[in-house]
Amino acid sequence: VDARLDDFFAKKLAYADALSPRAQELVGAVVELTMRGGKRLRPQLIYAGFRATTARETAHDWDAVASLGAAIELLQSYLLMQDDWMDDDDERRGGPSTHAAFARKVESPKLAASLAILASDVAIGFAVELLHATQFPPMRAVDALAAFTDMHFEVVCGQQLDLLGHADVSLTQQLKTGSYTVRGPVVLGAMLAGASDTQVQALERFALPLGVAFQLRDDLLGTFGKPAVTGKPVGHDLRKGKNTALVAEARRVFASDELASLDRVLGNAEATNAEVETLTRLFERSGVRAHVEAELRQRLTQAQRALRDATCLTPDGSGMLFELIERLAVRDR
Amino acid sequence: VDARLDDFFAKKLAYADALSPRAQELVGAVVELTMRGGKRLRPQLIYAGFRATTARETAHDWDAVASLGAAIELLQSYLLMQDDWMDDDDERRGGPSTHAAFARKVESPKLAASLAILASDVAIGFAVELLHATQFPPMRAVDALAAFTDMHFEVVCGQQLDLLGHADVSLTQQLKTGSYTVRGPVVLGAMLAGASDTQVQALERFALPLGVAFQLRDDLLGTFGKPAVTGKPVGHDLRKGKNTALVAEARRVFASDELASLDRVLGNAEATNAEVETLTRLFERSGVRAHVEAELRQRLTQAQRALRDATCLTPDGSGMLFELIERLAVRDR
Repeated sequence: VDARLDDFFAKKLAYADALSPRAQELVGAVVELTMRGGKRLRPQLIYAGFRATTARETAHDWDAVASLGAAIELLQSYLLMQDDWMDDDDERRGGPSTHAAFARKVESPKLAASLAILASDVAIGFAVELLHATQFPPMRAVDALAAFTDMHFEVVCGQQLDLLGHADVSLTQQLKTGSYTVRGPVVLGAMLAGASDTQVQALERFALPLGVAFQLRDDLLGTFGKPAVTGKPVGHDLRKGKNTALVAEARRVFASDELASLDRVLGNAEATNAEVETLTRLFERSGVRAHVEAELRQRLTQAQRALRDATCLTPDGSGMLFELIERLAVRDR
Repeated sequence: VDARLDDFFAKKLAYADALSPRAQELVGAVVELTMRGGKRLRPQLIYAGFRATTARETAHDWDAVASLGAAIELLQSYLLMQDDWMDDDDERRGGPSTHAAFARKVESPKLAASLAILASDVAIGFAVELLHATQFPPMRAVDALAAFTDMHFEVVCGQQLDLLGHADVSLTQQLKTGSYTVRGPVVLGAMLAGASDTQVQALERFALPLGVAFQLRDDLLGTFGKPAVTGKPVGHDLRKGKNTALVAEARRVFASDELASLDRVLGNAEATNAEVETLTRLFERSGVRAHVEAELRQRLTQAQRALRDATCLTPDGSGMLFELIERLAVRDR
């Protein structure tokens, strides 16, 4: 995937340069964020989805997996660029987020924001181009393109609900990360193999609970993770006012004085470390943390059971998916 | 095209509603802007490009023209939503622009801007989906998808140069509107017909000067147009600081006291009507207006000549393209 991205970016930088040297700056912002890291989990899920539904593996298949993996990484860059601006997050993947990087180069914050949005436009355009370059089996081509655009639509709607502080956190999370973090890549990978509908459905039964588990793990790490490992400061999610599963559960079970402590910290960038600590200890004492951890375990069990029951998948691919469960939901960063 | 859009939007509103009633609001913003009007010039160019390269016309062809036309209209909505926010334009097509409409519903301007960007995300996703629904002849499918993504890339780069106030106004305009206003639709329409490379090249020779002429007409209307007809207030482009062909020519020929008058108005929302009028009269006296009008005529002549020389195009299609020259470059709104 990285080699495919390098290749693709080299061509695009040359194309941009031919249009105007300045156009390279937008492409450069996309390259910078995309190549700065990220766990490349989604390309692994694509490959596992592919292997789970076929024993075939030709050079042509490898090529298609690489293109599709690169497309999904660029979709991810596009989403991160926009989310970071919308959430005023100035850091990403151990460096400045895209709008923060532009803000160092131009005077006006509005202009920096506009350039970051334009860079995200470039990224989604590249994602679509790489999707088009991915050769799906003819019988699955239409389904695959539809799966991609549906995934795009759902994640955008999820971001909207998130911004509006929608009361149904699990719906928001399912839309925002569920579709494109696990289900989308796994299903697209299977379509690359020309999987049967039965196989695709089996993978969906596995992917849905795993997507939720991934997000719950994210929520737990955003509040209880070690800053040195996660790269996020203590209390980051709380000070940002993120509508996490922890917060939703706290709203359900907290007494009124505990709710006051929650409201003091939530969305308050100025909250002190002591206030944050009081709140996280409250999460532990009141069983909020335990509740979310229990739900996470339950989702993992669902995903594992779905995989065990799926006799239509290859042992090889199932094995890879089992390993990915660990990496996605038992990670510490 | 409008029937296709109605149909498509009805399905998407139902899909959004199934995800979450609130998600309908993003789709609603796309519907609102797209159906509020616009000249639907691009779908006409698609159809003319199609007719110029084939005598065939089946129900299947009509269907493909409608899908592609709808795709381009949604690309246009996406661009308008973003441009209006970037340029702080609160009006569009006789109603509030998308970020301005959201600003009436939510408190924070940043949230309104974020929702407008999400609506633009929905619009470009829909555009891609309708592009995928357009059945190109197999021999042209790859070219057509590439033409679409290249067009997207170029217009985004053009917008970047525009925001940065790039010195080369004609390059900026060529990228920003040249590619997707005339050349893109005409060439995509031709590809729908399975046009030969010779035919596509002939259409490009016609489309490039016409795209420039369209933009020059836009520039002239933005400064000399009648507000009652164009829907834009007097001096709109000047107060917004738009980098038009008029401004570029003025910078080239103005004496220093005239430049002072230009700088007093350009990008100054507070400039008085008297100051604007002094400047527009300067544009006339110094030959700036005449220069831009002469260039416009020259481009029109180029486009007409290209069309007359193109023996590989059908008489029917050429006739339609001749008529479109008038509508695009001799319009008064």
